Amino acid sequence: MILIKIGGGKKINLDYICEDIKILIDQGEKVILVHGASVARDEIAEKMGAPTKTITSPTGISSVYTDKTAIDIFLMTYPGLVNKRIVAKLQSYGVNAIGLSGIDGQLWKGKRKTAVYVKEGAKTKLITDNMTGKVTKINFNLINLLLNNKYLPVICPPALSEENEIINTDNDWACAVMVGALKIQKMISLFEASGLLKKFGDESSLIKNVDKNKLDEYFIYTQGRMKKKLLGAKEAFAQGLKQLYWSDGRIKNPIIKALKGEGTIIS
Amino acid sequence: MILIKIGGGKKINLDYICEDIKILIDQGEKVILVHGASVARDEIAEKMGAPTKTITSPTGISSVYTDKTAIDIFLMTYPGLVNKRIVAKLQSYGVNAIGLSGIDGQLWKGKRKTAVYVKEGAKTKLITDNMTGKVTKINFNLINLLLNNKYLPVICPPALSEENEIINTDNDWACAVMVGALKIQKMISLFEASGLLKKFGDESSLIKNVDKNKLDEYFIYTQGRMKKKLLGAKEAFAQGLKQLYWSDGRIKNPIIKALKGEGTIIS
Repeated sequence: MILIKIGGGKKINLDYICEDIKILIDQGEKVILVHGASVARDEIAEKMGAPTKTITSPTGISSVYTDKTAIDIFLMTYPGLVNKRIVAKLQSYGVNAIGLSGIDGQLWKGKRKTAVYVKEGAKTKLITDNMTGKVTKINFNLINLLLNNKYLPVICPPALSEENEIINTDNDWACAVMVGALKIQKMISLFEASGLLKKFGDESSLIKNVDKNKLDEYFIYTQGRMKKKLLGAKEAFAQGLKQLYWSDGRIKNPIIKALKGEGTIIS
Repeated sequence: MILIKIGGGKKINLDYICEDIKILIDQGEKVILVHGASVARDEIAEKMGAPTKTITSPTGISSVYTDKTAIDIFLMTYPGLVNKRIVAKLQSYGVNAIGLSGIDGQLWKGKRKTAVYVKEGAKTKLITDNMTGKVTKINFNLINLLLNNKYLPVICPPALSEENEIINTDNDWACAVMVGALKIQKMISLFEASGLLKKFGDESSLIKNVDKNKLDEYFIYTQGRMKKKLLGAKEAFAQGLKQLYWSDGRIKNPIIKALKGEGTIIS
């Protein structure tokens, strides 16, 4: 079983990814796809007159401020526009995909953070209307049911809180919990860079191999979303992952090349 | 097995509907829900600066003009915003719902109408960029798989064309095809009226019983969307339906009251 995670960036080439998924499926591999939709979300939020707001935790991790309007826009773009476009594209490549959000069938359950501290300049502020939380529980029976019946699950946030509220959640962390629940050994994360770079934007600074036990040493090379990816990676290995591939989602044969080691391999 | 169809109107009370569905599920009934989202779609289309356009066929049936932008807005509202809000609400009532569009798992397949004649005043015009079609094939295995594993499918358009394009489709017709494929005997359609009315808006003109063999005589009482409901009803009976309940989606216990005959029963 391979878990493939694709970022929400604009330059991610969905056709190339679908082509490779079809190849894996034809080889008898079980594949789960998890995707983001951040760029589409931000564009639609802008059009709707409610631009995405970001908050930063006291430890410097940034995330989206998710009030009621932001949840509506989230639902429109993640399980709506982007999920269904990916599902239709996979169908056009002969892959029988089914789109699911974390809400469906209680696929992703988590605990809502009812109070969050945020940094505003030098000050720290408490906010209580943020609809976010971390995934703690996976409905692995549903995933196995679909996989065993030859469907490819295409999964995205939001998740469901313990009180059945709709909550935004970190994809990389949710993937790590899926790794544990489904005993996944290989995960591929595709984004808009050739892998983990020592210098942001400098593809020649690609780090080819990372020791999974030394992940903490690599936080110095990350910023913004990449910090979260690294936190997710740590948790995925804690949950039993064997190999994690960070690779380029913009190129032809992105998955095959990732598995060949053209990006960063963490193991 | 009961198929419940709920309209996309603003006054439809989702809480009341979910309460009744929970009662049916606890009685061991298998339930499938199909929903619309027309009002939400129109509101978001307006906000996005691309208001919904309507076309009218030479025989007087009106439908939505669905170009590429309209499909995007459709994906945002039907399988996105509205479907997930319904799924989360059902979850909060203890019903393990899964949202699916017609695209997912090739649930609803249809033939795209590549050319459509439309009336524009006294003239008739041919348009070729309309992404619509009629559902002809249902993935009934997927529905049965979910029902047999205690999930409640919450289904909405769009559908997938034979060429795997995303197409807008008539919900009532798709329900009729589902009736045939799943051998459904009872269907309840909930909307913003107490049933089929002789006079539009006059609840005292409710028609209590309709003979399924005389449906053609009732077209004189319908306009706009109700015409399509009647066409869908005719097809549903042709596909083997035994009872069709048209009833009020705004009231407490809408499903229980429908089954008791408080709306219109067609049989």
